[in-house]
Amino acid sequence: MYSPLIEQLISALRILPGVGPKSAQRMALQLLERDRQGALALAGALEQAAEHVRQCTRCRLLTEKPLCDLCEKTDRDDSKLCIAETPADVFALEQSGNYNGRYFVLLGKLSPIDGIGPSELGIDLLMQRLADEPIEEVIIATNLTMEGEATAFYIAERVKPLGIQVTRIAHGVPSGGELEYTDGGTIAHALLSRREI
Amino acid sequence: MYSPLIEQLISALRILPGVGPKSAQRMALQLLERDRQGALALAGALEQAAEHVRQCTRCRLLTEKPLCDLCEKTDRDDSKLCIAETPADVFALEQSGNYNGRYFVLLGKLSPIDGIGPSELGIDLLMQRLADEPIEEVIIATNLTMEGEATAFYIAERVKPLGIQVTRIAHGVPSGGELEYTDGGTIAHALLSRREI
Repeated sequence: MYSPLIEQLISALRILPGVGPKSAQRMALQLLERDRQGALALAGALEQAAEHVRQCTRCRLLTEKPLCDLCEKTDRDDSKLCIAETPADVFALEQSGNYNGRYFVLLGKLSPIDGIGPSELGIDLLMQRLADEPIEEVIIATNLTMEGEATAFYIAERVKPLGIQVTRIAHGVPSGGELEYTDGGTIAHALLSRREI
Repeated sequence: MYSPLIEQLISALRILPGVGPKSAQRMALQLLERDRQGALALAGALEQAAEHVRQCTRCRLLTEKPLCDLCEKTDRDDSKLCIAETPADVFALEQSGNYNGRYFVLLGKLSPIDGIGPSELGIDLLMQRLADEPIEEVIIATNLTMEGEATAFYIAERVKPLGIQVTRIAHGVPSGGELEYTDGGTIAHALLSRREI
C-alpha cells in the first residue's frame, strides 16, 4: 500500500541485521517524515564505505588505506600476534587496554557447512606473516563456540610446527559474575583452567 | 579505532530510530564484511526516496506521485474522511479492511512544546477539502495520548461549525485482551463508552 519508492526503501532496510518488516517500515517513514538530510547523509556514507573500505593487507582489519592504523603504529610489540574472529572483537580487545601486540583478523570462523574454510579465513596470509615477521607468540582469541574452538585448534595445529608458542585466551566466570547465575559450560571451563593462588 | 569512513558510516546509521552505538557498529561491520551489494542498494533506495517522495497534495500521505494510490482510487466512499496521525496508522486502518472512505494524514499531532501547531498538521488543507468535497462524516483516528486527544478536540471544534458530523474511533479493551492485564485508563474508557447489548 506504500508507494513503490517507499516499498523499495523498506525492503532495502531489511538487509540491516536485526531489522524486521515492522522496524524497516518505521525507519523508512521516520526518515521521510523528519530527516531527509540524515537519509541523504546515510546514503553517502554507505556508498563511500562500500566502495572504498578494504581489508588491511597485513592484518585483514577493515580500512580504506593499504595498512590499518594499528598496523601502521610503530610502538606495538611485534613479537605477539593476537588472532580474532571479527573487527568488533579486535575493538573489544583494544578497549581492555591490556594488549600491546599485533593483530590478525579471520573475518569469520571455520564452518564447512557455510563453505568457510582456511582460505576464506586468510590462513595463507597468516602463515606468510609468521614466516616474515619476528613473531614469538600467537594468542588465539576466537570465541568459545564450537566453530571458534575448531578454528583455534586448526590454527594451533598449523602454527606449532613452526616452533612458535601458541596460547588461548582464558575462559571462565566473568568478572563480577556470580556462580549461581553462570552456565554449566562456563563453570566447567573455570574449574578445568583453575590456577594456584 | 575504526577507519574514518567506517566511523562516518557508524554515526550515519545512528539516525535510524532505535539504533544505538552498538547496533550501528554491528550493522556497519556486517554490511562491509558480507553485503556490499546490499549496502549500495540501500544507499540508492535512500537517495531516491529522499529526493522524490513528497506528500500527496490531497491527503498528505507520502508518495512520489502528485496524488497517492488511495486518493486516485475511484471506488472509495467520498462522504467519509478519516484523519490519522501517520502513514503507518493509515496502513493499520487499511489492513483492518473495515473502512472504505478517504483519508487525511496529519503527519504529527499538536505539540506546542515541539513547535507543532495547526499549520504543521495541514489543517488549512483539511478545511479546504471539507469545503470542496462532499464530506458528510469526519472520523478522527488520532492516538489515545494526551497530544492525540488534544488534536482530536481541536479538529472537532474546527469541523463542527461546518455542520459536518465528527466521530472518534472507540477506545476500550482490545480484542483478545483480558481485564486482568489491561491498564486502568483503558478500562475507564471501556466503562465510559459501554453500549447496550
